[in-house]
Amino acid sequence: MLHLAATSEDDWGAWALAHMDEILLDHAHCEKKAASTALSMIFRYPEYPQLMVPMSALAREELEHFELVVSLIRRRGGEFVRQEPSPYAGRLMAAVRKEQPARLLDILLCCSLIEARSCERMQLIARALSARGAEAPEHPLHQLFALYDGLLVSEARHHATYVELARVCVGLDEASVQARLRELAEHEAEIIRTASREQPRMHN
Amino acid sequence: MLHLAATSEDDWGAWALAHMDEILLDHAHCEKKAASTALSMIFRYPEYPQLMVPMSALAREELEHFELVVSLIRRRGGEFVRQEPSPYAGRLMAAVRKEQPARLLDILLCCSLIEARSCERMQLIARALSARGAEAPEHPLHQLFALYDGLLVSEARHHATYVELARVCVGLDEASVQARLRELAEHEAEIIRTASREQPRMHN
Repeated sequence: MLHLAATSEDDWGAWALAHMDEILLDHAHCEKKAASTALSMIFRYPEYPQLMVPMSALAREELEHFELVVSLIRRRGGEFVRQEPSPYAGRLMAAVRKEQPARLLDILLCCSLIEARSCERMQLIARALSARGAEAPEHPLHQLFALYDGLLVSEARHHATYVELARVCVGLDEASVQARLRELAEHEAEIIRTASREQPRMHN
Repeated sequence: MLHLAATSEDDWGAWALAHMDEILLDHAHCEKKAASTALSMIFRYPEYPQLMVPMSALAREELEHFELVVSLIRRRGGEFVRQEPSPYAGRLMAAVRKEQPARLLDILLCCSLIEARSCERMQLIARALSARGAEAPEHPLHQLFALYDGLLVSEARHHATYVELARVCVGLDEASVQARLRELAEHEAEIIRTASREQPRMHN
Protein backbone atom coordinates (compact mmCIF):
# COMPACT_ATOMS: atom_id res chain seq x y z
CA MET A 1 0.00 0.00 0.00
CA LEU A 2 1.25 3.48 -0.88
CA HIS A 3 1.54 5.81 2.11
CA LEU A 4 0.55 9.02 0.28
CA ALA A 5 -1.47 11.59 2.26
CA ALA A 6 -3.56 12.62 -0.77
CA THR A 7 -4.41 11.05 -4.09
CA SER A 8 -4.02 12.93 -7.38
CA GLU A 9 -6.92 14.75 -9.01
CA ASP A 10 -9.28 12.49 -10.94
CA ASP A 11 -8.40 13.88 -14.34
CA TRP A 12 -4.61 13.64 -13.93
CA GLY A 13 -4.28 10.50 -16.08
CA ALA A 14 -6.28 11.95 -18.98
CA TRP A 15 -4.28 15.22 -18.75
CA ALA A 16 -0.99 13.30 -18.82
CA LEU A 17 -2.18 11.28 -21.82
CA ALA A 18 -2.93 14.51 -23.69
CA HIS A 19 0.73 15.56 -23.17
CA MET A 20 2.36 12.15 -23.46
CA ASP A 21 5.52 13.19 -25.32
CA GLU A 22 6.52 15.69 -22.62
CA ILE A 23 5.48 13.31 -19.82
CA LEU A 24 7.53 10.45 -21.32
CA LEU A 25 10.58 12.72 -21.61
CA ASP A 26 10.17 13.83 -17.99
CA HIS A 27 9.73 10.19 -16.99
CA ALA A 28 13.07 9.29 -18.62
CA HIS A 29 14.75 12.16 -16.72
CA CYS A 30 13.10 11.00 -13.46
CA GLU A 31 14.45 7.45 -13.88
CA LYS A 32 17.93 8.85 -14.55
CA LYS A 33 17.65 11.13 -11.51
CA ALA A 34 16.41 8.26 -9.32
CA ALA A 35 19.43 6.16 -10.35
CA SER A 36 21.74 9.08 -9.60
CA THR A 37 20.17 9.65 -6.15
CA ALA A 38 20.55 5.96 -5.24
CA LEU A 39 24.17 5.97 -6.41
CA SER A 40 24.87 9.17 -4.46
CA MET A 41 23.71 7.38 -1.27
CA ILE A 42 26.51 4.83 -1.81
CA PHE A 43 29.06 7.64 -2.14
CA ARG A 44 27.76 9.63 0.85
CA TYR A 45 26.93 6.89 3.35
CA PRO A 46 29.48 4.04 3.21
CA GLU A 47 29.24 3.94 7.04
CA TYR A 48 25.76 2.41 6.56
CA PRO A 49 26.66 -1.00 5.03
CA GLN A 50 22.94 -1.92 4.88
CA LEU A 51 22.48 0.72 2.16
CA MET A 52 25.20 -0.40 -0.25
CA VAL A 53 23.77 -3.39 -2.11
CA PRO A 54 20.07 -2.33 -2.03
CA MET A 55 20.95 1.16 -3.37
CA SER A 56 23.13 -0.34 -6.10
CA ALA A 57 20.40 -2.80 -7.13
CA LEU A 58 17.81 -0.02 -7.11
CA ALA A 59 20.05 2.22 -9.26
CA ARG A 60 20.44 -0.63 -11.77
CA GLU A 61 16.69 -1.08 -11.97
CA GLU A 62 16.08 2.66 -12.47
CA LEU A 63 18.65 2.65 -15.28
CA GLU A 64 16.90 -0.31 -16.90
CA HIS A 65 13.68 1.73 -16.77
CA PHE A 66 15.52 4.74 -18.19
CA GLU A 67 16.57 2.61 -21.16
CA LEU A 68 13.01 1.29 -21.63
CA VAL A 69 11.52 4.80 -21.62
CA VAL A 70 14.20 6.15 -23.99
CA SER A 71 13.50 3.35 -26.47
CA LEU A 72 9.76 4.03 -26.33
CA ILE A 73 10.41 7.75 -26.93
CA ARG A 74 12.46 6.75 -29.99
CA ARG A 75 9.85 4.30 -31.28
CA ARG A 76 7.37 7.18 -31.10
CA GLY A 77 9.72 9.22 -33.33
CA GLY A 78 11.12 11.40 -30.54
CA GLU A 79 14.51 11.67 -28.85
CA PHE A 80 15.79 11.98 -25.29
CA VAL A 81 16.76 15.66 -24.89
CA ARG A 82 17.24 18.20 -22.11
CA GLN A 83 14.08 19.35 -20.32
CA GLU A 84 13.38 21.77 -17.48
CA PRO A 85 12.64 19.61 -14.43
CA SER A 86 9.53 19.92 -12.28
CA PRO A 87 10.12 21.80 -8.98
CA TYR A 88 8.54 18.82 -7.13
CA ALA A 89 11.66 16.99 -5.87
CA GLY A 90 13.41 20.21 -4.84
CA ARG A 91 10.36 21.40 -2.90
CA LEU A 92 9.99 17.99 -1.25
CA MET A 93 13.66 17.75 -0.26
CA ALA A 94 13.51 21.23 1.29
CA ALA A 95 11.93 19.49 4.31
CA VAL A 96 15.05 17.36 4.92
CA ARG A 97 16.62 18.24 8.28
CA LYS A 98 20.31 19.21 8.39
CA GLU A 99 21.67 17.10 11.28
CA GLN A 100 22.43 13.38 11.14
CA PRO A 101 20.83 10.87 11.59
CA ALA A 102 17.60 12.88 11.03
CA ARG A 103 18.98 13.93 7.65
CA LEU A 104 19.43 10.36 6.41
CA LEU A 105 15.99 9.37 7.75
CA ASP A 106 14.36 12.29 5.91
CA ILE A 107 16.20 11.64 2.64
CA LEU A 108 15.17 7.97 2.65
CA LEU A 109 11.54 8.80 3.49
CA CYS A 110 11.38 11.56 0.84
CA CYS A 111 12.79 9.12 -1.74
CA SER A 112 10.11 6.67 -0.66
CA LEU A 113 7.41 9.31 -1.20
CA ILE A 114 8.77 10.18 -4.66
CA GLU A 115 8.60 6.49 -5.59
CA ALA A 116 5.08 6.22 -4.14
CA ARG A 117 3.85 9.28 -6.09
CA SER A 118 5.53 8.03 -9.29
CA CYS A 119 3.83 4.69 -8.78
CA GLU A 120 0.42 6.35 -8.30
CA ARG A 121 0.92 8.52 -11.41
CA MET A 122 1.95 5.49 -13.49
CA GLN A 123 -1.19 3.71 -12.27
CA LEU A 124 -3.25 6.71 -13.42
CA ILE A 125 -1.60 6.70 -16.85
CA ALA A 126 -2.10 2.92 -17.18
CA ARG A 127 -5.78 3.31 -16.17
CA ALA A 128 -6.38 6.17 -18.62
CA LEU A 129 -4.83 4.02 -21.36
CA SER A 130 -6.89 1.02 -20.31
CA ALA A 131 -10.06 3.15 -20.52
CA ARG A 132 -9.15 3.85 -24.15
CA GLY A 133 -8.78 0.13 -24.88
CA ALA A 134 -4.96 0.15 -24.98
CA GLU A 135 -4.77 -3.20 -23.16
CA ALA A 136 -5.52 -4.84 -26.52
CA PRO A 137 -2.23 -5.81 -28.21
CA GLU A 138 -3.34 -4.33 -31.55
CA HIS A 139 -4.18 -0.90 -30.03
CA PRO A 140 -1.82 1.88 -31.24
CA LEU A 141 -1.13 2.87 -27.60
CA HIS A 142 -0.54 -0.70 -26.40
CA GLN A 143 3.27 -0.29 -26.06
CA LEU A 144 2.68 2.73 -23.83
CA PHE A 145 0.18 0.78 -21.73
CA ALA A 146 2.58 -2.18 -21.45
CA LEU A 147 5.38 0.13 -20.29
CA TYR A 148 3.38 1.73 -17.48
CA ASP A 149 1.61 -1.44 -16.46
CA GLY A 150 5.00 -3.21 -16.34
CA LEU A 151 6.77 -0.51 -14.30
CA LEU A 152 4.14 -0.28 -11.54
CA VAL A 153 5.32 -3.36 -9.67
CA SER A 154 8.94 -2.22 -9.28
CA GLU A 155 7.98 1.34 -8.36
CA ALA A 156 5.76 0.00 -5.57
CA ARG A 157 8.66 -2.20 -4.43
CA HIS A 158 11.09 0.75 -4.44
CA HIS A 159 8.95 2.83 -2.13
CA ALA A 160 8.80 -0.07 0.35
CA THR A 161 12.59 -0.55 0.03
CA TYR A 162 13.25 3.05 1.06
CA VAL A 163 10.97 2.84 4.12
CA GLU A 164 12.58 -0.46 5.12
CA LEU A 165 16.08 1.06 4.81
CA ALA A 166 14.97 4.03 6.92
CA ARG A 167 13.90 1.55 9.61
CA VAL A 168 17.13 -0.44 9.41
CA CYS A 169 19.64 2.44 9.16
CA VAL A 170 18.32 4.95 11.67
CA GLY A 171 17.91 3.46 15.14
CA LEU A 172 14.32 4.62 15.66
CA ASP A 173 11.27 2.69 16.79
CA GLU A 174 8.59 1.87 14.23
CA ALA A 175 6.12 4.46 15.60
CA SER A 176 8.66 7.31 15.25
CA VAL A 177 9.51 6.31 11.66
CA GLN A 178 5.80 6.18 10.79
CA ALA A 179 5.15 9.54 12.50
CA ARG A 180 7.90 11.25 10.47
CA LEU A 181 6.68 9.52 7.31
CA ARG A 182 3.17 10.94 7.92
CA GLU A 183 4.58 14.46 8.39
CA LEU A 184 6.57 14.25 5.18
CA ALA A 185 3.61 12.71 3.35
CA GLU A 186 1.51 15.76 4.36
CA HIS A 187 4.23 18.05 3.02
CA GLU A 188 4.36 16.02 -0.23
CA ALA A 189 0.58 16.12 -0.60
CA GLU A 190 0.62 19.94 -0.21
CA ILE A 191 3.23 20.20 -3.00
CA ILE A 192 1.07 18.01 -5.25
CA ARG A 193 -2.07 20.02 -4.43
CA THR A 194 -0.40 23.33 -5.29
CA ALA A 195 1.61 22.10 -8.30
CA SER A 196 1.11 24.06 -11.51
CA ARG A 197 -0.05 22.18 -14.60
CA GLU A 198 1.66 24.69 -16.84
CA GLN A 199 4.37 22.19 -17.76
CA PRO A 200 3.39 18.54 -18.28
CA ARG A 201 5.56 16.56 -15.85
CA MET A 202 5.14 13.30 -13.91
CA HIS A 203 4.86 15.21 -10.63
CA ASN A 204 2.99 18.36 -11.76
CA MET B 1 43.18 -6.38 -27.84
CA LEU B 2 44.00 -3.79 -25.16
CA HIS B 3 45.60 -0.61 -26.51
CA LEU B 4 47.88 0.05 -23.54
CA ALA B 5 51.30 1.61 -24.30
CA ALA B 6 53.06 -0.37 -21.56
CA THR B 7 52.34 -3.55 -19.65
CA SER B 8 52.51 -3.69 -15.85
CA GLU B 9 55.60 -4.92 -14.04
CA ASP B 10 55.92 -8.71 -13.91
CA ASP B 11 55.43 -8.97 -10.17
CA TRP B 12 52.30 -6.78 -10.01
CA GLY B 13 49.89 -9.76 -9.66
CA ALA B 14 51.86 -11.34 -6.79
CA TRP B 15 52.12 -7.93 -5.04
CA ALA B 16 48.36 -7.39 -5.39
CA LEU B 17 47.68 -10.87 -4.02
CA ALA B 18 49.80 -10.06 -0.96
CA HIS B 19 47.50 -7.06 -0.26
CA MET B 20 44.23 -8.55 -1.42
CA ASP B 21 41.95 -6.99 1.20
CA GLU B 22 42.99 -3.45 0.29
CA ILE B 23 42.96 -4.23 -3.45
CA LEU B 24 39.43 -5.70 -3.23
CA LEU B 25 38.19 -2.63 -1.35
CA ASP B 26 39.75 -0.34 -3.96
CA HIS B 27 38.24 -2.51 -6.68
CA ALA B 28 34.74 -2.02 -5.19
CA HIS B 29 35.33 1.75 -5.11
CA CYS B 30 36.55 1.66 -8.73
CA GLU B 31 33.38 -0.12 -9.92
CA LYS B 32 31.24 2.42 -8.06
CA LYS B 33 33.26 5.29 -9.58
CA ALA B 34 33.02 3.75 -13.07
CA ALA B 35 29.22 3.56 -12.73
CA SER B 36 29.11 7.16 -11.55
CA THR B 37 31.28 8.35 -14.47
CA ALA B 38 29.05 6.56 -17.00
CA LEU B 39 25.93 8.05 -15.39
CA SER B 40 27.48 11.52 -15.36
CA MET B 41 27.95 11.25 -19.16
CA ILE B 42 24.17 10.87 -19.49
CA PHE B 43 23.63 14.02 -17.40
CA ARG B 44 26.30 16.07 -19.18
CA TYR B 45 25.86 15.00 -22.80
CA PRO B 46 22.16 14.48 -23.67
CA GLU B 47 22.94 16.17 -27.02
CA TYR B 48 24.80 12.96 -27.96
CA PRO B 49 21.91 10.45 -28.17
CA GLN B 50 24.35 7.68 -29.12
CA LEU B 51 25.77 7.82 -25.59
CA MET B 52 22.53 7.44 -23.62
CA VAL B 53 21.70 3.72 -23.74
CA PRO B 54 25.31 2.39 -23.91
CA MET B 55 26.34 4.53 -20.90
CA SER B 56 23.27 3.42 -18.94
CA ALA B 57 23.91 -0.26 -19.73
CA LEU B 58 27.59 0.14 -18.81
CA ALA B 59 26.69 1.81 -15.49
CA ARG B 60 24.33 -1.08 -14.70
CA GLU B 61 27.09 -3.59 -15.37
CA GLU B 62 29.60 -1.70 -13.19
CA LEU B 63 27.04 -1.65 -10.37
CA GLU B 64 26.54 -5.39 -10.74
CA HIS B 65 30.30 -5.80 -10.37
CA PHE B 66 30.27 -3.46 -7.37
CA GLU B 67 27.72 -5.75 -5.71
CA LEU B 68 29.80 -8.86 -6.57
CA VAL B 69 32.96 -7.36 -5.10
CA VAL B 70 31.16 -6.12 -1.96
CA SER B 71 29.74 -9.60 -1.34
CA LEU B 72 33.17 -11.19 -1.74
CA ILE B 73 34.65 -8.65 0.71
CA ARG B 74 31.92 -9.65 3.17
CA ARG B 75 32.42 -13.40 2.63
CA ARG B 76 36.08 -12.78 3.49
CA GLY B 77 34.97 -11.21 6.77
CA GLY B 78 35.52 -7.60 5.72
CA GLU B 79 33.21 -4.69 4.96
CA PHE B 80 32.95 -2.00 2.30
CA VAL B 81 34.30 1.18 3.92
CA ARG B 82 35.82 4.51 2.87
CA GLN B 83 39.31 4.37 1.40
CA GLU B 84 41.73 6.97 0.05
CA PRO B 85 41.61 6.62 -3.74
CA SER B 86 44.67 6.15 -5.95
CA PRO B 87 45.81 9.36 -7.74
CA TYR B 88 45.71 7.42 -11.05
CA ALA B 89 42.36 8.57 -12.51
CA GLY B 90 42.91 12.20 -11.51
CA ARG B 91 46.38 12.23 -13.09
CA LEU B 92 45.04 10.57 -16.25
CA MET B 93 42.10 12.96 -16.60
CA ALA B 94 44.44 15.96 -16.21
CA ALA B 95 45.24 15.42 -19.91
CA VAL B 96 41.61 16.04 -20.97
CA ARG B 97 41.39 19.16 -23.15
CA LYS B 98 38.98 21.95 -22.16
CA GLU B 99 37.17 22.73 -25.43
CA GLN B 100 34.45 20.62 -27.01
CA PRO B 101 34.39 18.29 -28.89
CA ALA B 102 38.04 17.52 -27.96
CA ARG B 103 36.94 17.33 -24.32
CA LEU B 104 34.36 14.60 -24.96
CA LEU B 105 36.82 12.67 -27.17
CA ASP B 106 39.48 12.78 -24.44
CA ILE B 107 37.07 11.77 -21.65
CA LEU B 108 35.84 8.76 -23.64
CA LEU B 109 39.40 7.69 -24.55
CA CYS B 110 40.63 8.12 -20.96
CA CYS B 111 37.70 6.01 -19.73
CA SER B 112 38.67 3.41 -22.31
CA LEU B 113 42.25 3.39 -20.99
CA ILE B 114 41.06 3.02 -17.38
CA GLU B 115 38.96 0.02 -18.43
CA ALA B 116 41.90 -1.42 -20.38
CA ARG B 117 44.28 -1.05 -17.43
CA SER B 118 41.70 -2.51 -15.03
CA CYS B 119 41.28 -5.44 -17.39
CA GLU B 120 45.06 -6.01 -17.56
CA ARG B 121 45.35 -5.82 -13.75
CA MET B 122 42.47 -8.29 -13.30
CA GLN B 123 44.21 -10.63 -15.72
CA LEU B 124 47.38 -10.37 -13.63
CA ILE B 125 45.45 -11.15 -10.43
CA ALA B 126 43.68 -14.09 -12.09
CA ARG B 127 47.05 -15.40 -13.37
CA ALA B 128 48.74 -15.04 -9.98
CA LEU B 129 45.82 -16.95 -8.43
CA SER B 130 45.97 -19.59 -11.15
CA ALA B 131 49.70 -20.05 -10.46
CA ARG B 132 48.74 -20.87 -6.87
CA GLY B 133 46.24 -23.49 -8.00
CA ALA B 134 43.13 -21.37 -7.26
CA GLU B 135 41.40 -22.60 -10.44
CA ALA B 136 40.53 -25.76 -8.50
CA PRO B 137 37.03 -25.38 -6.98
CA GLU B 138 38.20 -26.68 -3.59
CA HIS B 139 41.06 -24.13 -3.34
CA PRO B 140 40.51 -21.52 -0.56
CA LEU B 141 41.13 -18.69 -3.05
CA HIS B 142 38.83 -20.13 -5.73
CA GLN B 143 36.06 -17.56 -5.19
CA LEU B 144 38.58 -14.78 -5.70
CA PHE B 145 39.86 -16.46 -8.86
CA ALA B 146 36.31 -16.94 -10.16
CA LEU B 147 35.53 -13.25 -9.54
CA TYR B 148 38.53 -11.93 -11.51
CA ASP B 149 38.33 -14.54 -14.22
CA GLY B 150 34.63 -13.74 -14.64
CA LEU B 151 35.05 -9.94 -14.75
CA LEU B 152 37.77 -9.90 -17.41
CA VAL B 153 35.39 -10.37 -20.33
CA SER B 154 33.18 -7.39 -19.51
CA GLU B 155 36.11 -5.11 -18.70
CA ALA B 156 37.61 -5.87 -22.11
CA ARG B 157 34.21 -5.14 -23.69
CA HIS B 158 33.91 -1.82 -21.82
CA HIS B 159 37.20 -0.50 -23.12
CA ALA B 160 36.10 -1.30 -26.69
CA THR B 161 32.70 0.37 -26.03
CA TYR B 162 34.37 3.65 -25.02
CA VAL B 163 36.61 3.73 -28.13
CA GLU B 164 33.62 2.92 -30.33
CA LEU B 165 31.58 5.75 -28.73
CA ALA B 166 34.50 8.15 -29.25
CA ARG B 167 34.43 7.24 -32.96
CA VAL B 168 30.65 7.63 -33.24
CA CYS B 169 30.20 10.84 -31.19
CA VAL B 170 33.10 12.99 -32.31
CA GLY B 171 33.18 13.46 -36.08
CA LEU B 172 36.82 12.47 -36.54
CA ASP B 173 38.40 10.04 -38.97
CA GLU B 174 39.68 6.73 -37.63
CA ALA B 175 43.36 7.75 -37.95
CA SER B 176 42.85 10.88 -35.80
CA VAL B 177 41.00 8.92 -33.09
CA GLN B 178 43.80 6.33 -33.05
CA ALA B 179 46.48 9.03 -32.94
CA ARG B 180 44.90 10.71 -29.91
CA LEU B 181 44.38 7.31 -28.27
CA ARG B 182 48.12 6.59 -28.68
CA GLU B 183 49.04 9.95 -27.12
CA LEU B 184 46.77 9.35 -24.15
CA ALA B 185 48.00 5.75 -23.83
CA GLU B 186 51.59 7.10 -23.55
CA HIS B 187 50.44 9.48 -20.81
CA GLU B 188 48.65 6.61 -19.02
CA ALA B 189 51.73 4.36 -19.29
CA GLU B 190 53.89 7.11 -17.74
CA ILE B 191 51.47 7.37 -14.78
CA ILE B 192 51.61 3.60 -14.30
CA ARG B 193 55.43 3.57 -14.54
CA THR B 194 55.79 6.28 -11.89
CA ALA B 195 52.96 5.10 -9.59
CA SER B 196 53.94 4.54 -5.97
CA ARG B 197 53.31 1.11 -4.46
CA GLU B 198 52.97 2.64 -1.03
CA GLN B 199 49.22 2.05 -1.01
CA PRO B 200 47.86 -1.18 -2.51
CA ARG B 201 45.40 -0.06 -5.22
CA MET B 202 44.20 -1.51 -8.56
CA HIS B 203 46.08 1.22 -10.47
CA ASN B 204 49.18 1.68 -8.25
